[in-house]
Amino acid sequence: MNDILGSWKRTHYCGDLNASHIGEQVCLMGWVQRRRDHGGLIFIDLRDRTGIVQLALDPDRDPEAHAKADKVRNEWVVAALGKVSPRPEGTVNPKMKTGEVEIEVSELRILNRAETPPFMLDEYTEVAENLRLKYRYLDLRRPAVQNCLMLRHKVTRTVRNYLDENGFLDIETPVLTKSTPEGARDYLVPSRVNPGTFYALPQSPQIFKQLLMVSGFDRYAQIVKCFRDEDLRADRQPEFTQIDCEMSFVDRDDVMAIMEGMIARVFSECIGVEVPLPMPRMTYAEALDRYGVDNPDLRFGLELVDLTEIVRGCGFKVFADVAGKGGLVKAIRVPGGASFSRKELDDLTAFVAIYGAKGLAWVKMTDDGWQSPIAKFFQPDELKAIEQALQAEKGDLLLFVADTAAIANEALGRLRQHLGQKLGLAKKDDFRFVWITDFPLFEWDEEEKRYVAVHHPFTAPMDEDIPLLDSDPGRARAKAYDLVLNGSEIGGGSIRIHDQSIQQRMFELLGIGEEEARAKFGFLLDALKYGAPPHGGIAFGLDRLTMILAGTDSIRDVIAFPKTQKATCLLSEAPGPVDEAQLRELGIRLAARAKKSD
Amino acid sequence: MNDILGSWKRTHYCGDLNASHIGEQVCLMGWVQRRRDHGGLIFIDLRDRTGIVQLALDPDRDPEAHAKADKVRNEWVVAALGKVSPRPEGTVNPKMKTGEVEIEVSELRILNRAETPPFMLDEYTEVAENLRLKYRYLDLRRPAVQNCLMLRHKVTRTVRNYLDENGFLDIETPVLTKSTPEGARDYLVPSRVNPGTFYALPQSPQIFKQLLMVSGFDRYAQIVKCFRDEDLRADRQPEFTQIDCEMSFVDRDDVMAIMEGMIARVFSECIGVEVPLPMPRMTYAEALDRYGVDNPDLRFGLELVDLTEIVRGCGFKVFADVAGKGGLVKAIRVPGGASFSRKELDDLTAFVAIYGAKGLAWVKMTDDGWQSPIAKFFQPDELKAIEQALQAEKGDLLLFVADTAAIANEALGRLRQHLGQKLGLAKKDDFRFVWITDFPLFEWDEEEKRYVAVHHPFTAPMDEDIPLLDSDPGRARAKAYDLVLNGSEIGGGSIRIHDQSIQQRMFELLGIGEEEARAKFGFLLDALKYGAPPHGGIAFGLDRLTMILAGTDSIRDVIAFPKTQKATCLLSEAPGPVDEAQLRELGIRLAARAKKSD
Repeated sequence: MNDILGSWKRTHYCGDLNASHIGEQVCLMGWVQRRRDHGGLIFIDLRDRTGIVQLALDPDRDPEAHAKADKVRNEWVVAALGKVSPRPEGTVNPKMKTGEVEIEVSELRILNRAETPPFMLDEYTEVAENLRLKYRYLDLRRPAVQNCLMLRHKVTRTVRNYLDENGFLDIETPVLTKSTPEGARDYLVPSRVNPGTFYALPQSPQIFKQLLMVSGFDRYAQIVKCFRDEDLRADRQPEFTQIDCEMSFVDRDDVMAIMEGMIARVFSECIGVEVPLPMPRMTYAEALDRYGVDNPDLRFGLELVDLTEIVRGCGFKVFADVAGKGGLVKAIRVPGGASFSRKELDDLTAFVAIYGAKGLAWVKMTDDGWQSPIAKFFQPDELKAIEQALQAEKGDLLLFVADTAAIANEALGRLRQHLGQKLGLAKKDDFRFVWITDFPLFEWDEEEKRYVAVHHPFTAPMDEDIPLLDSDPGRARAKAYDLVLNGSEIGGGSIRIHDQSIQQRMFELLGIGEEEARAKFGFLLDALKYGAPPHGGIAFGLDRLTMILAGTDSIRDVIAFPKTQKATCLLSEAPGPVDEAQLRELGIRLAARAKKSD
Repeated sequence: MNDILGSWKRTHYCGDLNASHIGEQVCLMGWVQRRRDHGGLIFIDLRDRTGIVQLALDPDRDPEAHAKADKVRNEWVVAALGKVSPRPEGTVNPKMKTGEVEIEVSELRILNRAETPPFMLDEYTEVAENLRLKYRYLDLRRPAVQNCLMLRHKVTRTVRNYLDENGFLDIETPVLTKSTPEGARDYLVPSRVNPGTFYALPQSPQIFKQLLMVSGFDRYAQIVKCFRDEDLRADRQPEFTQIDCEMSFVDRDDVMAIMEGMIARVFSECIGVEVPLPMPRMTYAEALDRYGVDNPDLRFGLELVDLTEIVRGCGFKVFADVAGKGGLVKAIRVPGGASFSRKELDDLTAFVAIYGAKGLAWVKMTDDGWQSPIAKFFQPDELKAIEQALQAEKGDLLLFVADTAAIANEALGRLRQHLGQKLGLAKKDDFRFVWITDFPLFEWDEEEKRYVAVHHPFTAPMDEDIPLLDSDPGRARAKAYDLVLNGSEIGGGSIRIHDQSIQQRMFELLGIGEEEARAKFGFLLDALKYGAPPHGGIAFGLDRLTMILAGTDSIRDVIAFPKTQKATCLLSEAPGPVDEAQLRELGIRLAARAKKSD
């Protein structure tokens, strides 16, 4: 039988004690991190969420407490009464926050016993992730993991305070709702009251937050769970959390200004990093030109250089052909890359192949000029022009991709990011923000032979591009903006369409028929009829933002109870089978295929 | 074509303007509440979420703006540039916050037109609720409804700040999870990746918050959506919001003290009401004895008086029989109730019949003594004893129920609440809190012939009642507590079982077999093995709390997008039909019955 807590009240957290408390009587409670015997004395490292303090149990001072302490094992839960004392000379531990003191325990209670955990809890043990997730409640005892969640708490608090100070109202939107048109697959919830019908879990509160603007709430914000039933990549979760905001009577600049203020506050308050404001901005076109991607990592250079004009008509047929057929020939210069081995160059070639590039030409700048399989195809003035365009110097490696614009940009853009990591140019404590703006409104879908929305169908075109909706939709730019940090998109949003006739034109251009539009967004179209203000907003991915702030590489580190890439919870074993009776009530049955797997 | 916002920036909210701004140039944006012509001038009442201000358009000052103003109709969205001016003598409106000023408009933009709304938006229009819910975005324009949601924002902000100051960590728990055992029906979500299996939406994060305590987070709090697929009563919603908290190393007093501090802060900051602390406490037994219910409304007296001993063996056979058979005879005294009409007395009799009472005896205290159909059955000393017990005075009405303890208490308890309302004793701005404690741990279920948990199976017994688990479980009391405000339970919680052997004993007593316990709560049982601290918590219903703070009678007033009692959203028309293909992917089919209704 365990001791009861009874009337004992904790007076301090373990990690808060220091020399200023010497002489005080304290009552501490926590977990046994370690127990050791030392010349008849017993020392217990007692842990709580704030840290560790040392308990000292002397059999002469209190034989009963000492006898109890003799029984305790790692991870047992104990409470101790005692006096804060200086540690004896020579035993001070300067590495510990509480290393100057120990607690001379006068009374000890064993509040709970613990079996030996399935893995060691010290920070340095490498444990298979599946085992950690199955025993997540033990994994969460590790200070490194606890710190991630405490940081997340700070982030949400900072965000909420900032948004409140700026007049945003925290308004909850429904979780049991209707399918939204974000493109991904919905999670469905069968209705019992209306059998044969389904709710959908929201992929975002997009329409509801627009309706709140129509209602005149003016500024809305919510930290809100969203859901996507997609095949998961490593950094995705089926349920994820967004910082979701919407504002009325604003244009792009207003949203970007207030939101970069929020992010700067988060970085300052949560990790002590001051972000210079305003954040730089770059058009989508410039990002693609200089970095090949719309989420450029600005911590390092290695910019893409367009050589298409230079190589047009050159002696190297591969380049000349691509240039002639409307493709791009682009290159990056890797300072010092001339020392790359043949193996390293082969790996880079394999890397760009992932993104569809048919080849990667390389040039090493040596004392003897170009060392390269392609050197022989160029005239001296062509060599010179290329070197000048790239500002090439001795010791550099030049890497070239010639392909369609899309492939050349993506392949070289990704290669650039890859090299940034490989060469150690992307420092974790360097934070480079950039707003990407002026996205195209539409993308042409070759397979379906129709336009699709680059963001979503409610994104407003630039005022000056509205005429293009009729004349040349592919050239219309959107009032959309993404915030990119170190190569990751951490947030994105847009000014929305508030004019019903433009919204209807958008649906037409997207090939969404009147009936389909009515069925899916009828209530939004109605709302736009009754006086919608100009409005826009943004959503940030809280999980990813926290991950970057925490400097960790896994999104699962910043989520208390994450799911695996198979969307299962190893702890609770969700999803699980349910009773036939439950399904009957819902008016659904398992298909034969599903039953088999049961 | 509407005007564009262009580079205009709003400078002020409408409702914030007053005499101190006179002479300033302002840019306002909002909705046209009303437009009227007055001797060539046009006046527009411009509305935003802060209130209304008057725009004045003079054709001589700016003919173009005046011409535009001539076109605008109610609910159009406009932006105005102008100068804040004092209203001309005699036109000051002291009822309006902004009644001393008007805006001399120099430029006007029409940002959006509006069709005539399907109902008037002024506060006094009574509109059918179904129509309001269908056009919720218009309904939400009404200041009364907006104020409810702004109040809710304040409540959540106050709660979060208080909890943060007190060391609670905001930690998100999963929405896609496993069936929890709260007794109500779960909403299910079919899994596509694992066909034939289902997630459940949480009825509460109960187990997860307990696991967070096992992990050592010490204090957890979350404002979180919960879900119950129940047939809805008027004040229930399928998704509702809880203020959910859990603390480690605490007993009942600690939880109650910190939580009543939170509630007091909410009342003070959100509606300026100071709640005296500590809040009164009352045992469950006392509440039933004095008020007949465990959620007593303490705004008024009308307490129940137990007359069982007095009437035992009296001449009135109905009373004597009930007393003899172990039932209760209880009564309440209604001061001044002697004036109730026959009709009113009949209504009260019908009222108690709802709760199973076979009759309601009454006595009017008149100048001539008892006026009552039952007066003749009593001896003078019996009359006197009853009068004394009830402290009856001339003009009073005495109401008696004789029945089983359960029926007598509930019928008279509900009657008491009914009379409190009827007699105007329950004032909306009087807030009387009471903690109800010492609940029984179990209830005996006559139908199933077994014990069921009064709260949930993780509720700890009182330390001194642990031996009763073996000897007399029905008498064991729980470390549970409800916070009751004006007759509504606004929160409830308990100290949890942290000892695995007691948890297993609980499951046995509740008839939950080892296999079932393993399947349902295996991971909690495991967690208790590895060093769980003593812990406990509470959850408050945010919707109901806000409803009481707002002084409104409908829970739908404090939810932005509520559902009907049929669990539908009239705005988005959720739930709705889905494609066969979607169901196929999920491995489910509609049962014939459901298909028919499609």
